[in-house]
Amino acid sequence: MTFTSRTPRVVAARKLQRRKDRDQAGRFLAEGPQAVREALAAGVVLELFGTGDGLSRHAELAAEAPVVSPIDDDGLASLAETVNPQGLVAVCEQVDVPIHEALAKQPRLVAVVAEIRDPGNAGTILRTADAAGAEAVIFAGDAVDPYNGKCVRASAGSLFHVDVVRAPLDVVPELTAAGLQVLATSGYGADDLDSLADDGVLAAPTAWMFGSEAHGLPASVLEEADRRVRVPIYGGAESLNLAAAAAVCLYASARAQR
Amino acid sequence: MTFTSRTPRVVAARKLQRRKDRDQAGRFLAEGPQAVREALAAGVVLELFGTGDGLSRHAELAAEAPVVSPIDDDGLASLAETVNPQGLVAVCEQVDVPIHEALAKQPRLVAVVAEIRDPGNAGTILRTADAAGAEAVIFAGDAVDPYNGKCVRASAGSLFHVDVVRAPLDVVPELTAAGLQVLATSGYGADDLDSLADDGVLAAPTAWMFGSEAHGLPASVLEEADRRVRVPIYGGAESLNLAAAAAVCLYASARAQR
Repeated sequence: MTFTSRTPRVVAARKLQRRKDRDQAGRFLAEGPQAVREALAAGVVLELFGTGDGLSRHAELAAEAPVVSPIDDDGLASLAETVNPQGLVAVCEQVDVPIHEALAKQPRLVAVVAEIRDPGNAGTILRTADAAGAEAVIFAGDAVDPYNGKCVRASAGSLFHVDVVRAPLDVVPELTAAGLQVLATSGYGADDLDSLADDGVLAAPTAWMFGSEAHGLPASVLEEADRRVRVPIYGGAESLNLAAAAAVCLYASARAQR
Repeated sequence: MTFTSRTPRVVAARKLQRRKDRDQAGRFLAEGPQAVREALAAGVVLELFGTGDGLSRHAELAAEAPVVSPIDDDGLASLAETVNPQGLVAVCEQVDVPIHEALAKQPRLVAVVAEIRDPGNAGTILRTADAAGAEAVIFAGDAVDPYNGKCVRASAGSLFHVDVVRAPLDVVPELTAAGLQVLATSGYGADDLDSLADDGVLAAPTAWMFGSEAHGLPASVLEEADRRVRVPIYGGAESLNLAAAAAVCLYASARAQR
């Protein structure tokens, strides 16, 4: 039997495109072979929807999924947010862990995205944090949902590699209690990233905090952090974009912590 | 007199949303107060279209423009690609310079985007290169048009700060002749960025080359470059996204060249 866009299980899965329904179900959608492969490796796939073509081209993924549901092209298109998900969409269990669980592992590098609304930026920072060796990424305050389809795609699988945490905005005390120095990024920060690198400050276990591109970090967070850090601007640009600034900061720490 | 979307000068300006017409006219559109301000500072604004509201809110920009053309809301919307250009769109002269002119200034840091098709990525790299102190950004081969609206916006004004160059793909010999070491980024590069930084290699005048996210740099470019460099991956991610990798590389050079 091949499912269609009207099959009840497909209708139910499609609702996971909405945050409210994701939150309620504790599930989300991963589309395309790369995301499905990482979700399978993480053991969180509940059901794999695939077109005949998608399932035959990625038979090794179909073989690993606990439930495989053949679906027609229209049905698959109704579940997918991208034009070309290569015939695969998986329903997954959400992977986030409580903050105390992530911090109990004594991470040496953590990224905190605080009130970041853009899912592409959040997903890119997840990917960059993972590449830089961060063990956890904390979505703090009124941030984008880490299971937003665009965030999942921009993370390129890193959603499944690091400890993802959802927490209130006020995370600094917990980070500090876990032995992390808290570095808050700000275009007006008193500390210059390169100077901190020169002075050996970045070798210590660190939580980097990034705010929204429009508003930066809230004043309360800036005050509570151990330092307010700016990425030096050597040319005429006013600032870096958020994901670029995060890449520079996280890699400066990675290099210092080697 | 207030222009509308049917006024011939507005119709002509709207054509600049297409690459073919931009190439032919040697002009492009900059929208929103930030881009208009930078374009005015660079002396390349030919005509400023503004709604009554836009012109009164940004009277200081209107005062500097050589020609100011009041336009109704629909007319402005027909010129703008964003939903909220805050009532201002300027027709600008293209700013790129020949490669020999940019290299004659003996730049110490250059970014080359080779065959990059995504305008958002290209614009972000322009912005990051400017922030890192690069003097020139070269769009090589079949790359996105630097005057593509999305690229202009993602550059956040940096299009007007650095020497923008359009060149054929085969730029390595000219870069080398200008005394620049050519570092080609590749996920499989033999040289690790952090090792190059440790060994002092990055202090020399450098041209960084970045390829498309889908295909990387062409083999011919990788072979001709002085080194093939990978950004180290410390975690589970397969790679960095293009703009993040560029940020890490360019800032590693900026730090070494201080």
